[in-house]
Amino acid sequence: MSINTFGHLFRVTTWGESHGPALGATVDGCPPQVAVDEAMLQHWLDRRKPGTSKYTTQRREPDQVRILSGVFEGKTTGATIQLMIENTDQRSKDYGEIAEKFRPGHADITYWQKYGIRDYRGGGRSSARETAARVAAGGLARAALAELVPGIEIRGYMVQMGADRIDRGAVDEAEIERNPFWCPDAAAAARWAESLDGLRKSGNSVGAVIEVVARNVPPGLGAPVYGKLDTDLAAAAMSINAVKGVEIGAGMAAAELTGTENADEIRMGPNGPEYSSNQSGGVLGGISTGQEIVLRFAVKPTSSILTPRRTITKSGAETDIVTKGRHDPCVGIRAVPVGEAMVACVLLDHLLLHRGQVGDRMGAIGPRG
Amino acid sequence: MSINTFGHLFRVTTWGESHGPALGATVDGCPPQVAVDEAMLQHWLDRRKPGTSKYTTQRREPDQVRILSGVFEGKTTGATIQLMIENTDQRSKDYGEIAEKFRPGHADITYWQKYGIRDYRGGGRSSARETAARVAAGGLARAALAELVPGIEIRGYMVQMGADRIDRGAVDEAEIERNPFWCPDAAAAARWAESLDGLRKSGNSVGAVIEVVARNVPPGLGAPVYGKLDTDLAAAAMSINAVKGVEIGAGMAAAELTGTENADEIRMGPNGPEYSSNQSGGVLGGISTGQEIVLRFAVKPTSSILTPRRTITKSGAETDIVTKGRHDPCVGIRAVPVGEAMVACVLLDHLLLHRGQVGDRMGAIGPRG
Amino acid sequence: MSINTFGHLFRVTTWGESHGPALGATVDGCPPQVAVDEAMLQHWLDRRKPGTSKYTTQRREPDQVRILSGVFEGKTTGATIQLMIENTDQRSKDYGEIAEKFRPGHADITYWQKYGIRDYRGGGRSSARETAARVAAGGLARAALAELVPGIEIRGYMVQMGADRIDRGAVDEAEIERNPFWCPDAAAAARWAESLDGLRKSGNSVGAVIEVVARNVPPGLGAPVYGKLDTDLAAAAMSINAVKGVEIGAGMAAAELTGTENADEIRMGPNGPEYSSNQSGGVLGGISTGQEIVLRFAVKPTSSILTPRRTITKSGAETDIVTKGRHDPCVGIRAVPVGEAMVACVLLDHLLLHRGQVGDRMGAIGPRG
Amino acid sequence: MSINTFGHLFRVTTWGESHGPALGATVDGCPPQVAVDEAMLQHWLDRRKPGTSKYTTQRREPDQVRILSGVFEGKTTGATIQLMIENTDQRSKDYGEIAEKFRPGHADITYWQKYGIRDYRGGGRSSARETAARVAAGGLARAALAELVPGIEIRGYMVQMGADRIDRGAVDEAEIERNPFWCPDAAAAARWAESLDGLRKSGNSVGAVIEVVARNVPPGLGAPVYGKLDTDLAAAAMSINAVKGVEIGAGMAAAELTGTENADEIRMGPNGPEYSSNQSGGVLGGISTGQEIVLRFAVKPTSSILTPRRTITKSGAETDIVTKGRHDPCVGIRAVPVGEAMVACVLLDHLLLHRGQVGDRMGAIGPRG
Repeated sequence: MSINTFGHLFRVTTWGESHGPALGATVDGCPPQVAVDEAMLQHWLDRRKPGTSKYTTQRREPDQVRILSGVFEGKTTGATIQLMIENTDQRSKDYGEIAEKFRPGHADITYWQKYGIRDYRGGGRSSARETAARVAAGGLARAALAELVPGIEIRGYMVQMGADRIDRGAVDEAEIERNPFWCPDAAAAARWAESLDGLRKSGNSVGAVIEVVARNVPPGLGAPVYGKLDTDLAAAAMSINAVKGVEIGAGMAAAELTGTENADEIRMGPNGPEYSSNQSGGVLGGISTGQEIVLRFAVKPTSSILTPRRTITKSGAETDIVTKGRHDPCVGIRAVPVGEAMVACVLLDHLLLHRGQVGDRMGAIGPRG
Repeated sequence: MSINTFGHLFRVTTWGESHGPALGATVDGCPPQVAVDEAMLQHWLDRRKPGTSKYTTQRREPDQVRILSGVFEGKTTGATIQLMIENTDQRSKDYGEIAEKFRPGHADITYWQKYGIRDYRGGGRSSARETAARVAAGGLARAALAELVPGIEIRGYMVQMGADRIDRGAVDEAEIERNPFWCPDAAAAARWAESLDGLRKSGNSVGAVIEVVARNVPPGLGAPVYGKLDTDLAAAAMSINAVKGVEIGAGMAAAELTGTENADEIRMGPNGPEYSSNQSGGVLGGISTGQEIVLRFAVKPTSSILTPRRTITKSGAETDIVTKGRHDPCVGIRAVPVGEAMVACVLLDHLLLHRGQVGDRMGAIGPRG
Repeated sequence: MSINTFGHLFRVTTWGESHGPALGATVDGCPPQVAVDEAMLQHWLDRRKPGTSKYTTQRREPDQVRILSGVFEGKTTGATIQLMIENTDQRSKDYGEIAEKFRPGHADITYWQKYGIRDYRGGGRSSARETAARVAAGGLARAALAELVPGIEIRGYMVQMGADRIDRGAVDEAEIERNPFWCPDAAAAARWAESLDGLRKSGNSVGAVIEVVARNVPPGLGAPVYGKLDTDLAAAAMSINAVKGVEIGAGMAAAELTGTENADEIRMGPNGPEYSSNQSGGVLGGISTGQEIVLRFAVKPTSSILTPRRTITKSGAETDIVTKGRHDPCVGIRAVPVGEAMVACVLLDHLLLHRGQVGDRMGAIGPRG
Repeated sequence: MSINTFGHLFRVTTWGESHGPALGATVDGCPPQVAVDEAMLQHWLDRRKPGTSKYTTQRREPDQVRILSGVFEGKTTGATIQLMIENTDQRSKDYGEIAEKFRPGHADITYWQKYGIRDYRGGGRSSARETAARVAAGGLARAALAELVPGIEIRGYMVQMGADRIDRGAVDEAEIERNPFWCPDAAAAARWAESLDGLRKSGNSVGAVIEVVARNVPPGLGAPVYGKLDTDLAAAAMSINAVKGVEIGAGMAAAELTGTENADEIRMGPNGPEYSSNQSGGVLGGISTGQEIVLRFAVKPTSSILTPRRTITKSGAETDIVTKGRHDPCVGIRAVPVGEAMVACVLLDHLLLHRGQVGDRMGAIGPRG
């Protein structure tokens, strides 16, 4: 895997900086004859677009995606697909004054230490704008998955903002699209709105936990050792800006379980094995079970805040910094469509890997298994 | 990355099943002229070896590693290094009776569904024995790191067993080697011993959280997008058997922080930047900061337990199962040296990637920065 | 390596079709701080540009390259570099009538058989226009090499057109830029001009052999087994459209040599080992010797010709075809800058791989060797 | 692709040195449920084994292969397959006296210059013994291909020794197994025997050209740009020790053809398209046509000869060398089974890649195409 590429067979290489002329995703290995057009991809990008509520950055980026290659007469051709999003709102003057200072919690300092290059224009390559390219690629992956795995569904939502976690009993997926937080619990959404208003006004920010669920994923995707489905899901989530923790199924809480509590018991259902619970999060030994795949990840609070923070300059001088600009008080919100996109890419990739190596040599369970 | 391979430039491909003649690690891309011999690798394997206390499986595997290639006159040659461990205790009769039943919580069922092959001999490829090969490869990575990054230190320990988490204030690293749990807190170790005794006798098991810390890692390892150091650390941890959650620095708790709490402030120290805290876990924007790298992962309880569990057979019949055999009541214990090994492999890999792409073109911080 | 990507650490993914809106190269892994701008890349593209003489296609494509990412204030940043060339002359009506027929010698038929997609617009992905993206990436590789390997020189020229091979004794490199064939022999260039005039007028075409030489390449690039420098040079050359044969050093003629004739004898020169001859083409055991690297490849004649050829349609009907359009009578001519570009990419890639794995642990030859 | 690995999905990593304890191939990505055992692999190894005639090295290596992992009850499991061959005849004393001198035409000098390691034991990693591991892996690839592509046939033979090329009209494939040169022309085999006898007695050696043909390969394998079938075939051939040139179909002679001569005309046959000729060697635009795949490669003469050659030592002193030991007067002979093995690996790899990306979305030619 190269530095800016994600995936094995369905490979996504993103490119572009927050304040350059454009950014995009170069996608290699997409199956041919998948029906796709710009509107289909735009649908997903619009969900991530900045400026849709007062809780996300007020930068106005239409994030209009163009398909430059690999699609002919509305179908993928099997060749490289280039997805480009032009940057229209590149007000780099917002950032000019901090060209010498490193912003705490940002990649400015490590990027400088690594490459000897200081792209002070709003984060450059490490900006969350890069995730627009992921969402475009994820839209493509969804289009392919929809044809190859009928009924597959990938859905993300926020389950925690700050210390306020939703009540599992109150989850109603119909709520997800009804509030600006992708929150499946109307009461929690109301509490979060109030809390985030306060943080936003004080120039502060807060973290969040996102959950992404994939349903109707066939059993058999993944591999027993390094090419595990959960390994790639964890890498996918951790590769998203600001993510600090990743969980599959029971997640960190698995440590607290005993063996009797943890192992999901198996029964035979009309369409194959059924499980009494889903502590595994749909993955056993790196391979999908056919249950819901459950991935969660924690996003740290935006580091760009109005409270002065102590820092240093490139020349080593100690100073303070206030990061102005138009930032998200809770970047976790816009991480929801990004998480969905990454899950779509991982699932398609593993589907292709699976049929490449295994084809139809799978095992059946049942009277003739 | 292929299915059974981990790493970009320092690539480790493991092979072998728990009850086959041997297992091992094929290592490609190791720097030449690294002083290494079998005793150096054996040192690390002995820490993971089964049967060293009553809290780990009583299978007696000497886990003796042989270097079959890539080392000449005590130095790596730059060629592929083959590390082989012969299996001596292959009592597969323990498993014979369960050849038709799937063990809940195990990969038996998904492996069968994927490949149509049922290797009933103790887990086959998905057995935790595979991790012996990782520890051997990790020993090699440590040998190379010791020469390339003087002072580097990689240390793992257990911070939680079941719901019992150690008190951060009581941590004493000198304790780690003094108890069978790699626990840095003597009081916690005593509590865990008692608790695990009870679980073991009742044929039950429990989960754990392991933390691995790496010190004196230079700044600049990693990359801003997919080739992030934390992405690869997360993948490395999640690829270990039974791991369900991974955290870097503040981890899942980052969700609860505000921006003012989260961003580590920066000051200038005698040897470069210093930070007021380490919420980042030593990684900002995917690149190492020079602080301690802090990785944590949760290991689920062993699924092989003596309590009968409901399950099905290959032919779809419903039945119960009790998994006898000689299993670890807390596999988390032996995951400690495995976690260390994976961190060593990731750090060496990123060190090689960094000098490959960047060489000496790094940025300096200071009066002439 | 994915389908549309070339290279290990310096990775070039090309995208775009001959008659789409644009094409380009997505380059990952370029070292940071390399001075580069669009004019530097354009210099190389202009050498490959169609329509520069009557011996190349009369399509007028300005082939203007834009750098969309990865370069900031005139220097590479270490991030993905996107090089885009917009297609301005997309007269697809030229091709409309052949949408149902497969052109003999072209990839139409295999592309259809593989993907079930017929992009009849002038070859689509298999068009030689794709090589413009390679030349742009090669320009970037040259810029990096110029900084990392002072004095390195990569030069391509044509050594054979049809059956007319140049006389090695008459080679004068100063001639290369003085004729439209990149021919280092003025007399041969004159003969070729006459011969090609005749072929062009009769609507026929002819093959060619190109040689690319790299000078001042340091010893030590490559690896003993699969990551051989010559393996990657061969793959690079064979990946160019219409190439059917590849040679290193003595090439196919090595078969005719005896051991005494073949092995280049070694003497000690002022700057290291010197060789009595260069049958090896600068590569021994997959690793560069420090001698000139000599790569040759044969390009088949353009398959688009005016003589009617027998073929079939998608529905299996037998028919004849005449491929009109504006084609090169000898595509070998424009393959010269493409060959140079591929060699530049391979050398940079192996330089990065070498310093990644080996760093400064090389062996010296001499009194203290 | 890492340094010692070949392939994309079917990945072969070879390991081991000529005079170490063992060598082998670590194979990842093999389809599951392929029937294979040690005898099946041994069949192919025996064809390459040294000492079978007076025309190959008299070292006696039984080259007995063991399957250490990835096969259970006679079937591949989908996990890593470890194929090990122990070295039994490691008479390294033959080489002791040349530990300081570099052998002209060998990789000793470049290996030293690259890694600073001098493995003087008969070539170490660059020894042709490494190819035994390729033949073992090729045997596995053949077993999988036999199940996945009924009727596939891969056959290698020698078409030229020194300047003596076989007469195409005299080819009789039944002859191949009847002489020690895998020569399909009895008259040529007799001439070669006489000629090689003379060279062998005088301590000299000679080069050769090998051709490998694959029949009944389905159309559609490969890709239009870098992942071309012919690119990978060229890389596979060039990666074999001592190979200096590679040709597909018309090969280097394609340069001499005109467009009318070169493009194979197409007609409709009972089972799909048929071609009037096979200048393309079965590959158009990087994708298989369904015709015979024709690969040729030139092997240079063994560099280990009895005539004294001028060379230098590690300390830069000028000297002469005579390479004793038990060498092949024409290494091309034993390259025949190696070439077949590499073609088998490439074809299986591309078959898996194809079904991974494309599955059953291929295009049909015919009335309903």
